[in-house]
Amino acid sequence: MAKIEVGILGATGMVGQQFVRLLESHPQFRLTWLAASERSSGKALARATEWRLDGRIPAYAAELPVSEPRPSGAPQLVFSAMDASVAGEIEREFAQAGHIVVSNSRNHRMDADVPLLIPEVNAEHLGLIPVQQRNRNWRGLIVTNPNCSTVVLTMALAPLVPFGIRSVVATTMQAVSGAGYPGNASFDVLGNVVPFISGEEDKMEHETQKILGRFSHDSVVPLNAAVSAHCNRVAVLDGHTVTTSVAFSRKADLADIAHAMETFQSPPETMNLPTAPKRPLILMHEPDRPQPRRDAARENGMPVFVGRVRRCGVLDVKFVACGHNTIRGAAGAAILNAELLVSQGHL
Amino acid sequence: MAKIEVGILGATGMVGQQFVRLLESHPQFRLTWLAASERSSGKALARATEWRLDGRIPAYAAELPVSEPRPSGAPQLVFSAMDASVAGEIEREFAQAGHIVVSNSRNHRMDADVPLLIPEVNAEHLGLIPVQQRNRNWRGLIVTNPNCSTVVLTMALAPLVPFGIRSVVATTMQAVSGAGYPGNASFDVLGNVVPFISGEEDKMEHETQKILGRFSHDSVVPLNAAVSAHCNRVAVLDGHTVTTSVAFSRKADLADIAHAMETFQSPPETMNLPTAPKRPLILMHEPDRPQPRRDAARENGMPVFVGRVRRCGVLDVKFVACGHNTIRGAAGAAILNAELLVSQGHL
Amino acid sequence: MAKIEVGILGATGMVGQQFVRLLESHPQFRLTWLAASERSSGKALARATEWRLDGRIPAYAAELPVSEPRPSGAPQLVFSAMDASVAGEIEREFAQAGHIVVSNSRNHRMDADVPLLIPEVNAEHLGLIPVQQRNRNWRGLIVTNPNCSTVVLTMALAPLVPFGIRSVVATTMQAVSGAGYPGNASFDVLGNVVPFISGEEDKMEHETQKILGRFSHDSVVPLNAAVSAHCNRVAVLDGHTVTTSVAFSRKADLADIAHAMETFQSPPETMNLPTAPKRPLILMHEPDRPQPRRDAARENGMPVFVGRVRRCGVLDVKFVACGHNTIRGAAGAAILNAELLVSQGHL
Amino acid sequence: MAKIEVGILGATGMVGQQFVRLLESHPQFRLTWLAASERSSGKALARATEWRLDGRIPAYAAELPVSEPRPSGAPQLVFSAMDASVAGEIEREFAQAGHIVVSNSRNHRMDADVPLLIPEVNAEHLGLIPVQQRNRNWRGLIVTNPNCSTVVLTMALAPLVPFGIRSVVATTMQAVSGAGYPGNASFDVLGNVVPFISGEEDKMEHETQKILGRFSHDSVVPLNAAVSAHCNRVAVLDGHTVTTSVAFSRKADLADIAHAMETFQSPPETMNLPTAPKRPLILMHEPDRPQPRRDAARENGMPVFVGRVRRCGVLDVKFVACGHNTIRGAAGAAILNAELLVSQGHL
Repeated sequence: MAKIEVGILGATGMVGQQFVRLLESHPQFRLTWLAASERSSGKALARATEWRLDGRIPAYAAELPVSEPRPSGAPQLVFSAMDASVAGEIEREFAQAGHIVVSNSRNHRMDADVPLLIPEVNAEHLGLIPVQQRNRNWRGLIVTNPNCSTVVLTMALAPLVPFGIRSVVATTMQAVSGAGYPGNASFDVLGNVVPFISGEEDKMEHETQKILGRFSHDSVVPLNAAVSAHCNRVAVLDGHTVTTSVAFSRKADLADIAHAMETFQSPPETMNLPTAPKRPLILMHEPDRPQPRRDAARENGMPVFVGRVRRCGVLDVKFVACGHNTIRGAAGAAILNAELLVSQGHL
Repeated sequence: MAKIEVGILGATGMVGQQFVRLLESHPQFRLTWLAASERSSGKALARATEWRLDGRIPAYAAELPVSEPRPSGAPQLVFSAMDASVAGEIEREFAQAGHIVVSNSRNHRMDADVPLLIPEVNAEHLGLIPVQQRNRNWRGLIVTNPNCSTVVLTMALAPLVPFGIRSVVATTMQAVSGAGYPGNASFDVLGNVVPFISGEEDKMEHETQKILGRFSHDSVVPLNAAVSAHCNRVAVLDGHTVTTSVAFSRKADLADIAHAMETFQSPPETMNLPTAPKRPLILMHEPDRPQPRRDAARENGMPVFVGRVRRCGVLDVKFVACGHNTIRGAAGAAILNAELLVSQGHL
Repeated sequence: MAKIEVGILGATGMVGQQFVRLLESHPQFRLTWLAASERSSGKALARATEWRLDGRIPAYAAELPVSEPRPSGAPQLVFSAMDASVAGEIEREFAQAGHIVVSNSRNHRMDADVPLLIPEVNAEHLGLIPVQQRNRNWRGLIVTNPNCSTVVLTMALAPLVPFGIRSVVATTMQAVSGAGYPGNASFDVLGNVVPFISGEEDKMEHETQKILGRFSHDSVVPLNAAVSAHCNRVAVLDGHTVTTSVAFSRKADLADIAHAMETFQSPPETMNLPTAPKRPLILMHEPDRPQPRRDAARENGMPVFVGRVRRCGVLDVKFVACGHNTIRGAAGAAILNAELLVSQGHL
Repeated sequence: MAKIEVGILGATGMVGQQFVRLLESHPQFRLTWLAASERSSGKALARATEWRLDGRIPAYAAELPVSEPRPSGAPQLVFSAMDASVAGEIEREFAQAGHIVVSNSRNHRMDADVPLLIPEVNAEHLGLIPVQQRNRNWRGLIVTNPNCSTVVLTMALAPLVPFGIRSVVATTMQAVSGAGYPGNASFDVLGNVVPFISGEEDKMEHETQKILGRFSHDSVVPLNAAVSAHCNRVAVLDGHTVTTSVAFSRKADLADIAHAMETFQSPPETMNLPTAPKRPLILMHEPDRPQPRRDAARENGMPVFVGRVRRCGVLDVKFVACGHNTIRGAAGAAILNAELLVSQGHL
């Protein structure tokens, strides 16, 4: 079967590079087109950006030319890792022109007719697509994945929805790769904690409600749960860690909670997608795990790892969750979204 | 006025060294006696321990001999920084023999007749001392200071007690010096978060209730508030950071909460003690502060720094607190306790 | 073809765990036997040690029992990652009993009749084996691999031997995994450089001469070159970096030096061994590479990476080299040595 | 005595902030004037820059207005911490207009008639000032201090000049504060070594020769010694560490070398300057010192610390040196230079 050609909007940043890396040997997609800001356009990728991930720029993409972010010439399926300052308008332009935009940018995540998608959690939110296309008179479409710390929290909470999540207090310890490149100055981060990430708490609080919401009558009804986030940057390279306390409206036995996490499974339409992890959630029983440096990149960085499930003296249950922020929380999440779109016939 | 001679039980560890450093030019105390485990005894301090704090071992203490931890020959006032595996019994032996033991060890903190003391917060708990001496038929006495992360949390909460603290959810990001020496292996901590510190959550949850409790009829009535802690080790040298959400039984305006923190003062009997910070709590208004590396050591490491006071969507108010764990959270806390004992005539 | 059974002496330490990881899917070797100190013996590996490398203990080895380090019951081929305090005698006992001991320990490296082996560099030193067996009246044998920082330096120097290496000044910046576990306290390493590693400079200075020496008339004639090392510990997890200045006895053109490095190849008997890297040395042309975090683990951690080849104003040429210290510098090196022994008919 | 008014060119950067901090309670200088790039001018310092050093912006300077970098209105004595892209011309303009420019910028360091000054080492280079003023027809003047890593190396070498320094091979491990702010991205530095700092090796190689040169007949005769540097960035906040091997033209006994370092003294005209360290060089005898985190900031960050003086198998002697790069290597160095100018009657 011929592979589907794909492009990347915003190919030169931290998440853009992660897309390039992850698409290198993708069984369904072939990367043929790159776009970035004007400064880069016209150059080959290897000249337009310094490779910042481990090792060297993958040879297959080094000589791909970087175009301007305009629809003409772009393949039908494009991933977007553009900066939020420009992503909104450009993504709409692509969707208008018939492209399928699978975006990691925050701009359209909270639009009522745009799916904020985690295939293992809310694949049925794809029901918004016809609504979106009708509303906006688009042939193309936009789907988005959540903010990097939200993915970690939300996947850990997903199996607990049946217990009636009433409220969530979460504290993040976020890796520096989440700030892009150059991101945080090393003089700020070395041996330090920076207890603030602009806009992040708001994203975690609102995206979580939408993601865990129910699709019904052509719209998503947000989960009626209060979420409160404290977001911090720590001296970690990759992998966001989230301590989480949850209160439930139904009586929840601790063993039932742990069991729900341990046995949580993707819906059938997601399970066999190439980028889907074998299990979306991996419950660890060691007393001091998960840890970002030892766990976040395991199994291609796609599961979320949870541990230390125990009683909370204030809410009902508490635990720690951890996931790879530029894979599961960004490029990998978007690629999985695209695979779901393909499998559901949207291409 | 002649200085009071003091000794240190457990002089060779991380907190013991911090005692040596802080006592170097103390206006009231003169360090004349050291004790440590058998392995060290008989040696001068400079040979019994490698100096691990900044710079070199203070010259004044380098040649002090290290004795065995027995009361004979020890001054009346001794600070204890011994390991919990031995501290309990030795401290009792000293108190029995008439010594005033000002301890940083956890062993007696939760004893009903032992003050768990933060002079700025609960100086009236000294009322337990006659009870303790009567109960135990001691001429001496034991007072304790809280666990290092508990001090940070409790001092930040102290001005909020009048609002009726109902529950607290706290996540710590703790410095490696809190684990003593050698403490955490660098292979575990570099670029990582370890989401577990043995026994720490329990200490924070129970010590906080005792510290913020009321002294009444010869005993301390614990604060009737639920506390839930998530404790983590991060790649920070000194300074524990605590994100905190609090619920109140009385309606609390955000500005009132911040004002209570900003104007919080030590009681008169504490204010002028040599080690007391000018203000116990320093409220910072920068959006990304306090930070452990930039703030914890300010003003001799004795205040607790708070910031980001804002609404919590689940409980009522949230903020971040930060303090120096081996000074405010250990050696400095004990020295301040001793100063209070002196000023209250217990010596 | 049936796989060869192998064992590990010292299976619970940092290098021991790296052996377990690397042998998991080895095409020739099957790990069937483990030994460690008395404290561990009798337990399954998963209970005898906490897994400290990324992820979890490999399932295939978790339930292998840990024996005492005695020859009876051990397979013919054993890898040794024992502490130097015990390795010397135990390794001799195994060799005496007919075992092939492939050791990472330092004890026998400088013995005149023991090969200090890097297959890509000095495979002909295997000629010492009959000498060793004759001298010691052994049916078995011992081969060793160099100290972790020495491997990096020596592989970078190997292609330069034909230019007549006269002297070498090297400064290392070594990863914490090189100190084993727990190794360096995080309180010593965070945000710091420790300019001393016990015994390391001496090893680099003498092992290098032996490794690069010529095998002739049943002995190794050390390279007649002065080596001076400055060894430092830095806050890096894995990967030793070595800045190197070299003086030659023959006039060396800079381009010739770089070309010799770039085209350096393993001898035929090594090239196709399963663990041999495609090229032993990878010359990087980026101005700021190699870097330990981005390069050391590439290509299974087996090549040495070099860069910044340029004129030295004092000696003749300078460059930087980098390699993975627990793979190329320890467990991987030993496995490659064992593969060479097998291919040369020593089993 | 009235204090001398001083200004800072480039007050908002990392070194500019260090000037502000060090001048807070200077006994001779009073900071009254600040300048920075256009973007900042017109604002108070507290609004023009985020304070990045420990704690908060010193109150005394927070409301000082930031001017444009033009001589009119500036005090006679100005410190320059401007970026090299603009410093050259602006400094000349100030000197032309009669100002005494004490610069940390690299632009004029190697000018034949500009002193590259370390008061403890080459105070006699001030003899260049009349030459400079004559050459350039200036009423004002420019003096410079060396690059941050050069200071550390040169001060350690200064007492060894009498032994006839013939060649020096040095490897630096440099702190991130040396790159200014934002400087290195944390994604590049965490758990890594970056073996390249643009332009740094050239500076160390040439500045060292000038600094250690002899002033004679109105010019500086550079020291006739080859210097070769390998420069690296490591995950350290403040403090550059330099491993150094030195060859001498005269036979040098190791004890004599160590003794020369240990007893090295400032010349009389420097010794009592307010910022001069008690001893310029502190020789440490611990086997693993100096260390940047534990030593660089000692004694106000002004001495250079040396240790591990031992034989070098290739050159003659080797040792490690360490100093605070933004104090001894930048702002503190410049302030000491200004103090020397004042004491020598140049104001």
